[in-house]
Amino acid sequence: MPPAGLPGLDHQTLAGAGNGLRHLSVWRQTIAAGAATPAHRHDCEEVIVVASGHGELHVEGRVYRFGADCTLVLPASVDHQLINTGSEPLHLIAALSMAPVQVLTPDGRALPLPWQA
Amino acid sequence: MPPAGLPGLDHQTLAGAGNGLRHLSVWRQTIAAGAATPAHRHDCEEVIVVASGHGELHVEGRVYRFGADCTLVLPASVDHQLINTGSEPLHLIAALSMAPVQVLTPDGRALPLPWQA
Repeated sequence: MPPAGLPGLDHQTLAGAGNGLRHLSVWRQTIAAGAATPAHRHDCEEVIVVASGHGELHVEGRVYRFGADCTLVLPASVDHQLINTGSEPLHLIAALSMAPVQVLTPDGRALPLPWQA
Repeated sequence: MPPAGLPGLDHQTLAGAGNGLRHLSVWRQTIAAGAATPAHRHDCEEVIVVASGHGELHVEGRVYRFGADCTLVLPASVDHQLINTGSEPLHLIAALSMAPVQVLTPDGRALPLPWQA
């Protein structure tokens, strides 16, 4: 069910703090056509494996276009945003080197998540 | 190309130390029907997302059967082995909270990897 605060984003925590992990979380997400994550950052490293769909990764003013089977690598603490620019759902798996995952807005405020991170 | 030392195991490092990461590595692996990883452990947490296929996870004497869309969660430093018990290739993505990844045999020796970890 899409969380109210993040329209177009379907989230599943595959593994994380709820499984006793302290340094690793793995999420499965689907971004609907035309939808996007908010701009945000994590104080941990992140790797996104794109299963299907097309999109753009915006990182500190730069735009990277990607498609299925691309891997996106994000160093810790860089602001980023994922946008589904295609006409199909964007399916991805994200691995983060933190559990639970904290999400910060570009101005440093904590972004409450509508799921157990 | 299957590495000579690990027959039946096809490996791709999607992200890791070669990308500047220090706390996160993501691998894509295929285990051929009937093949298995050696028993091994890492001094880091690991999450395995099974894309397709069937297999067994052996963890310190226990056996867990899994199939497609299962997620396997391994705490740090537990000996484990993945076995493809099906008739099709076993496709998976593994995330590890370490870069580069060190692999140890159950008796604590470093297991040299035939790929850049």
